[in-house]
Amino acid sequence: MTDDSSQLRERAQLAASILDARDRLRAHVRRTPFDRSLPLSARLGGEVWLKDEHLQHTGSFKARGALHKILTLSPIQRAQGVVAASSGNHGAGLAWACRLQGVRAVIFVPEQASPAKVAMIERYGAEVRHEGVDGVDTEAHARAVAERDGSTYVSPYNDLDVICGQGTIAVEIVEQLTAQVPDGVLDAIVVAVGGGGLIAGIAAYLKHVMPTVRVIGALPANSPVMAESVAAGRIITRTSFPTLSDGTAGGIEPGAVTFPLCQALVDQWIQVDEGAIAASMRRYVEEHHQVIEGAAGVALAALERLAESGDAAPSVHGARVGVVLCGANISTSTLVDVLQGTG
Amino acid sequence: MTDDSSQLRERAQLAASILDARDRLRAHVRRTPFDRSLPLSARLGGEVWLKDEHLQHTGSFKARGALHKILTLSPIQRAQGVVAASSGNHGAGLAWACRLQGVRAVIFVPEQASPAKVAMIERYGAEVRHEGVDGVDTEAHARAVAERDGSTYVSPYNDLDVICGQGTIAVEIVEQLTAQVPDGVLDAIVVAVGGGGLIAGIAAYLKHVMPTVRVIGALPANSPVMAESVAAGRIITRTSFPTLSDGTAGGIEPGAVTFPLCQALVDQWIQVDEGAIAASMRRYVEEHHQVIEGAAGVALAALERLAESGDAAPSVHGARVGVVLCGANISTSTLVDVLQGTG
Repeated sequence: MTDDSSQLRERAQLAASILDARDRLRAHVRRTPFDRSLPLSARLGGEVWLKDEHLQHTGSFKARGALHKILTLSPIQRAQGVVAASSGNHGAGLAWACRLQGVRAVIFVPEQASPAKVAMIERYGAEVRHEGVDGVDTEAHARAVAERDGSTYVSPYNDLDVICGQGTIAVEIVEQLTAQVPDGVLDAIVVAVGGGGLIAGIAAYLKHVMPTVRVIGALPANSPVMAESVAAGRIITRTSFPTLSDGTAGGIEPGAVTFPLCQALVDQWIQVDEGAIAASMRRYVEEHHQVIEGAAGVALAALERLAESGDAAPSVHGARVGVVLCGANISTSTLVDVLQGTG
Repeated sequence: MTDDSSQLRERAQLAASILDARDRLRAHVRRTPFDRSLPLSARLGGEVWLKDEHLQHTGSFKARGALHKILTLSPIQRAQGVVAASSGNHGAGLAWACRLQGVRAVIFVPEQASPAKVAMIERYGAEVRHEGVDGVDTEAHARAVAERDGSTYVSPYNDLDVICGQGTIAVEIVEQLTAQVPDGVLDAIVVAVGGGGLIAGIAAYLKHVMPTVRVIGALPANSPVMAESVAAGRIITRTSFPTLSDGTAGGIEPGAVTFPLCQALVDQWIQVDEGAIAASMRRYVEEHHQVIEGAAGVALAALERLAESGDAAPSVHGARVGVVLCGANISTSTLVDVLQGTG
């Protein structure tokens, strides 16, 4: 991580854009709670603060980035509509945002997409089209259609407007922490990483305001693409194995703007296995009586791993650590498996 | 329901006290979302709006009433501490409120109280004492100790300060509906009823602001004490059978101030069986990815029953109906049973 002046300027501009995004989104997104978790704090011997984006509209932070993208379109772009490829949280977030703003959305999903997820997207009024056998096919198709029709393709993470939308989470975190702990800072923040849009936005703003904060990227060991890419110094492709954290699974597109941001802003990577993810999800439901999805479980499992380092810094003991709970969208059958300890 | 002038004056005073409570609580409680549920609205053919008190601090609306009670104590009363009898949401709410305000709390629970619930109360810093084999014994003991020690016994519902705290939910509902639907009113609101503190506070304020709103009390058929009391014209005692809605189960104490309020303010009572409660809980988790407890399931099940009346008023079709989701506190084993359809 080198801090030359052009990089500093870039980061300050990003922080300023995130504050602009906050102004645009304020009236529309939920200011989700950011509170100290008593059970986690007691067990891990530090202050653990949770950002409840699983309670965001559509059950995921993706609503922020998607809506911010829509709010930055020109009138002509709005009239032409938007296109995306996602049967998950990005698709739902974009459909929600377009409904709110009266913009036409076409969401491409793989042929085998879960009917429950498709129903969720359709409920927000988006048109769903089944194309392609996997995510890569579907995405290529969506891009081609956007190109052909003159509509705007919205990437789930490779877009600075989307990243700035996700970064508004950090603006709220700073406000909410300061309201409860005047002059308080976070020692670290743990964020699940897939394409890297969430952690890039949060880190860009948080490091601007709290330069000493340690940004920790959490990934499932079954699909740690960004961590391995940063280690390799280039975006790699690798086979991903199935994971409870479907929200972070999958590859990173060539030239993704999130890659250099993750290189520059993430201080530590923690990979967690499926058993640890399930155990963290189960414990969270037991202790907090709220549902979280696998990607949020990844962040909590990484927190527990961090705590296992005992008193050796960086740890949780004696520290103030934030964790972003990024989503709640999980199927009932997977939830039951997780709660029964078979997930 | 007779509307003589003394009754009108009493109600207006109650509404004013609820607005005072709102000012006192504003900085401390969560302004939980009040949003239209797309799945419920689509299925039932009306506008269904949900008030998310399952996302309140401590996972239940009881935090409001408990904190409001603490905020109305005199300095001497605060110094003497408070006492309550509850292993459930009232105990947790009062413990939370006392922690926030630096007031000593002693919570009496039955000898057989669930260790998980006791741990939740202790986590907020209250002292838990096991006394009595059932709720009635435990409550008698708590009252005797309060009397002996000069501390304040806090009833879960038979207390106007507690009722006004719960009524702040209605103040938020009116604000939140008006922000989204200018000049909008609710045709009906569905609220689960145990001791009646929640529905009394909500109805008192809501009918003051929206006189045409229909207030519907929802109860488990296995423990419909308030509905049967109102039908009998006096507080009755009856055997309650086990119910998923442990939050509303149990008797009503003689002379309870909630009884005349329910007589005057509740327009309709709907009883629901255990299968309907479980089905509503399961569907809510599936569609909204959030956990609710049995008492919230009672309100949703009553909504579904109301909708079954088709186009005959009162119904849900073509109407705007609010439902209060009162809590999230459910054991993991009960949650799994409900999700698997065995609850």
